[in-house]
Amino acid sequence: MAEYNNLDTLSAFKKLQALKGAVKLGQVLNEERVRNSTVAMAGGLKYNYACKQVNESILKVFQELSREAQVIEKYKELLDGEVINTGENRKVLHHLTRGQLGNDVIFNGKNLGKFYQEQLERIADFAAKVHSGNIKAQDGKPFTTVVQIGIGGSDLGPRAIYMALENWAKKHNTLKLKAHFISNVDPDDGAGVISNLDIAHTLFVLVSKSGTTQETLANELFVKNFIKEKGLDPSKQMVAVTSESSPLANNPGYLDSFYIDDFIGGRFSSSSAVGGTILSLAFGADVFKDFLAGAHEADKLALEEDVTKNPALLDALIGIYERNIQGYPVTAILPYSQALSRFPAHLQQADMESNGKQVNRRGEKLSYETGPVIFGEPGTNGQHSFYQLLHQGTDIIPLQFIGFKDSQLSKDIEVDGSTSQKKLCANLSAQMVAFALGSHNENPNKNFPGERPSSLIYGETLCPRTMGSLLSHYENKIMFQGFLWNLNSFDQEGVQLGKLLTKEVLAGKTTGALKAFGEIFGL
Amino acid sequence: MAEYNNLDTLSAFKKLQALKGAVKLGQVLNEERVRNSTVAMAGGLKYNYACKQVNESILKVFQELSREAQVIEKYKELLDGEVINTGENRKVLHHLTRGQLGNDVIFNGKNLGKFYQEQLERIADFAAKVHSGNIKAQDGKPFTTVVQIGIGGSDLGPRAIYMALENWAKKHNTLKLKAHFISNVDPDDGAGVISNLDIAHTLFVLVSKSGTTQETLANELFVKNFIKEKGLDPSKQMVAVTSESSPLANNPGYLDSFYIDDFIGGRFSSSSAVGGTILSLAFGADVFKDFLAGAHEADKLALEEDVTKNPALLDALIGIYERNIQGYPVTAILPYSQALSRFPAHLQQADMESNGKQVNRRGEKLSYETGPVIFGEPGTNGQHSFYQLLHQGTDIIPLQFIGFKDSQLSKDIEVDGSTSQKKLCANLSAQMVAFALGSHNENPNKNFPGERPSSLIYGETLCPRTMGSLLSHYENKIMFQGFLWNLNSFDQEGVQLGKLLTKEVLAGKTTGALKAFGEIFGL
Repeated sequence: MAEYNNLDTLSAFKKLQALKGAVKLGQVLNEERVRNSTVAMAGGLKYNYACKQVNESILKVFQELSREAQVIEKYKELLDGEVINTGENRKVLHHLTRGQLGNDVIFNGKNLGKFYQEQLERIADFAAKVHSGNIKAQDGKPFTTVVQIGIGGSDLGPRAIYMALENWAKKHNTLKLKAHFISNVDPDDGAGVISNLDIAHTLFVLVSKSGTTQETLANELFVKNFIKEKGLDPSKQMVAVTSESSPLANNPGYLDSFYIDDFIGGRFSSSSAVGGTILSLAFGADVFKDFLAGAHEADKLALEEDVTKNPALLDALIGIYERNIQGYPVTAILPYSQALSRFPAHLQQADMESNGKQVNRRGEKLSYETGPVIFGEPGTNGQHSFYQLLHQGTDIIPLQFIGFKDSQLSKDIEVDGSTSQKKLCANLSAQMVAFALGSHNENPNKNFPGERPSSLIYGETLCPRTMGSLLSHYENKIMFQGFLWNLNSFDQEGVQLGKLLTKEVLAGKTTGALKAFGEIFGL
Repeated sequence: MAEYNNLDTLSAFKKLQALKGAVKLGQVLNEERVRNSTVAMAGGLKYNYACKQVNESILKVFQELSREAQVIEKYKELLDGEVINTGENRKVLHHLTRGQLGNDVIFNGKNLGKFYQEQLERIADFAAKVHSGNIKAQDGKPFTTVVQIGIGGSDLGPRAIYMALENWAKKHNTLKLKAHFISNVDPDDGAGVISNLDIAHTLFVLVSKSGTTQETLANELFVKNFIKEKGLDPSKQMVAVTSESSPLANNPGYLDSFYIDDFIGGRFSSSSAVGGTILSLAFGADVFKDFLAGAHEADKLALEEDVTKNPALLDALIGIYERNIQGYPVTAILPYSQALSRFPAHLQQADMESNGKQVNRRGEKLSYETGPVIFGEPGTNGQHSFYQLLHQGTDIIPLQFIGFKDSQLSKDIEVDGSTSQKKLCANLSAQMVAFALGSHNENPNKNFPGERPSSLIYGETLCPRTMGSLLSHYENKIMFQGFLWNLNSFDQEGVQLGKLLTKEVLAGKTTGALKAFGEIFGL
């Protein structure tokens, strides 16, 4: 079994501390460095770290740190079904939803790899019936639309992936149903989405692992009332994605139910039935399988011991160096792809909910910083928004760019000698160099200090396989950082207090400040 | 004339430094404090700072700091048309687009207040003609849709405000045209938006102050080609919003043109023709006037000398205390209103582009931190995403909540004894107290340290007037913080280097790292 120790007890970490500020990008960045700083990712993507503040010595210490923290061993134990989520006494099995890399994982006599596989097959079968018209709307016509009702992990990942692939699917004639999402308990969210729909031909996917999520159940009833008002039977146009022990399982209120279990954390559930149902319905099960194949390939690559050949691990180690050695508290994710406009919001959850913690796996208070704030918007939009601060603000914010050589729809025009896609990529290239090298100007207001590190993930085009690779890259990066910080990245105790106090407010059982705030809203 | 000095030279700032960590929320927060910490805002909104780490002594020093930095005098000089944007030698006149609070502002013999007013009247007239059918689509049928083509300030603010008021307008039968937005130079953005439209009945609003914005001109041509492919004449369904000296002004390629000038910064242009055209077309000019009235009322309130009666100034001072005394580098904006889902993205630009700077108004390097990173997502969604880090992460992130007693659409249901709207407000109240007070638990993993400060902006419902008040509140907060940090909040030199290098890439004139990055994308 791997040993779990705090980051600051590791001798390689102490070596890393001695390397603070060792690299000045202005001194090292050149053409050759860009060419020599590429690591192959799954699905044909590449990771380039030429504009990160690392050099050979730092990479060597990264390798030592990775070995000393036994991160690959820990990953292997996770794949083999060890109880990595110790706080909740749970295995961590989202990798298994896209293929098996370790031993068979058996729990209560059930082979879980097979279980997840079966669910995906059941979903594929159901989706095929919807697409062929075997499963129809109540008026006998085909379904045209699918709406996911879920929040947090049941919303952000599937929504981001749907948006990432919608145009690709249009272009490849595989957009079967248009998808929408209802998440917020704000009644204007559900009402707003529904008012634009052809309800009679809309299939709803209700997603709640426990079957007790407050927001999701409220939105379910909201939708059901609306369907009933139209004289229709909600049970004939709604499916559930839940755990086998939830009240939603095997419930005659749904056309069908698809299952996950406690070993699939919400924020890592995009490759399970949680993402699989809506994405298979929207794009067809084959598209979802390509997505899973990309993710599985990335999971495999993450087993590589050599940090310079393991992009998720290298990305994780650079993040640790930036957070704990260089002292940068925030990271921005900047996709130069409108299709990825909500991907930063998904990564915000995946990262901040996993590693935004101050105690280690044994519940001991840590004396070093853990997860940074993650935010981002697509470029070039961000350039016209917050890049001013990134270039000339008083704090340094490490950046991660994502870009593709080709657009998804291939509808483009040339203006002033270049296509929009070329302009997009030219902007991305220019920004990386501008952040790294800056530009000296006698007028301090026009001076760019540079030395603002960034990395780049790039590929030919954003398709299901590259999207799977991209998702898995970040999931594994977050996992590796959790191992390095010695955190349990798979629980989320920090969300409990708010839930508890909310119940008190709604029950009218409050005193003090909470009572006064409740009164503000007439509660 | 007011004097401009660095924050750390002010004697009140030194007093403030002595008050670091003076308030422990766990010791002071109670029912009475919540009741006594409310400041009236414009439009019936209120600002509550009970959960901020301030007390009487700190408020007293805030008042001294405000006087010593002469922030109200500076605001008055701005209103009177002084050249506040010294770097670009420009007046700063966005307040004047919603009413006059100072002397007449005359430039080159032109009364600018009257000029802005005239433009709004021309827009109102144009919108009325579109709504009445006097101005029609090319097939003689009415326009049903309006699309804004713009980026940065020509996109984020108008888009956030449209989204904020779309459901309100539906409810009040004043949604005249449905609006969409094209901003990114990524060709998939424009192509994706257009593919869902009834082009023949869509009016386009092209927004570029200079008439030379790369992304906007590329998207304009993209749209024009698409219109031509349908056998239609683009000049009959496109208007321009620009400056009078731009190539788009008085151009036969547009149905009409509406004007702004160099004294309206992009990120502060929502209340000018930039926001006014699309919002008047979408909702009617009367709705836009209500929005302006709310903003004007807030501008007036911001003249108040007493910091405890001036919510924008108080908010600004608390932000300075959090950034420069407490040392918090990030602020989150958390609207408990799905309608405000893109408002944090607008504030991200407004704030980070204005105050993300490291030199003062005279171009001297500052030795203190300026603008923080701003991010946010609507609640309750955020609770299921990044709140884990906010509650239990190693950094403290100050928060600003926004909430409303009533929903916009009034379509709601009761589940378990409460409506969704009540659940939404109960969650908000619970979070504020959870962040402030935390909760002790023997299990460190379930322990909540608390002492995480937040403020609350609240009101009855989100309507045009409250939206105007809200927007102006933040604009004025940002302005006051710029005065306190001694920044020029109204230029954005930090965006220039990227533009310059992009041109080099597109011209094929690159060497070194930039050449290598360009080659990655086939440039």
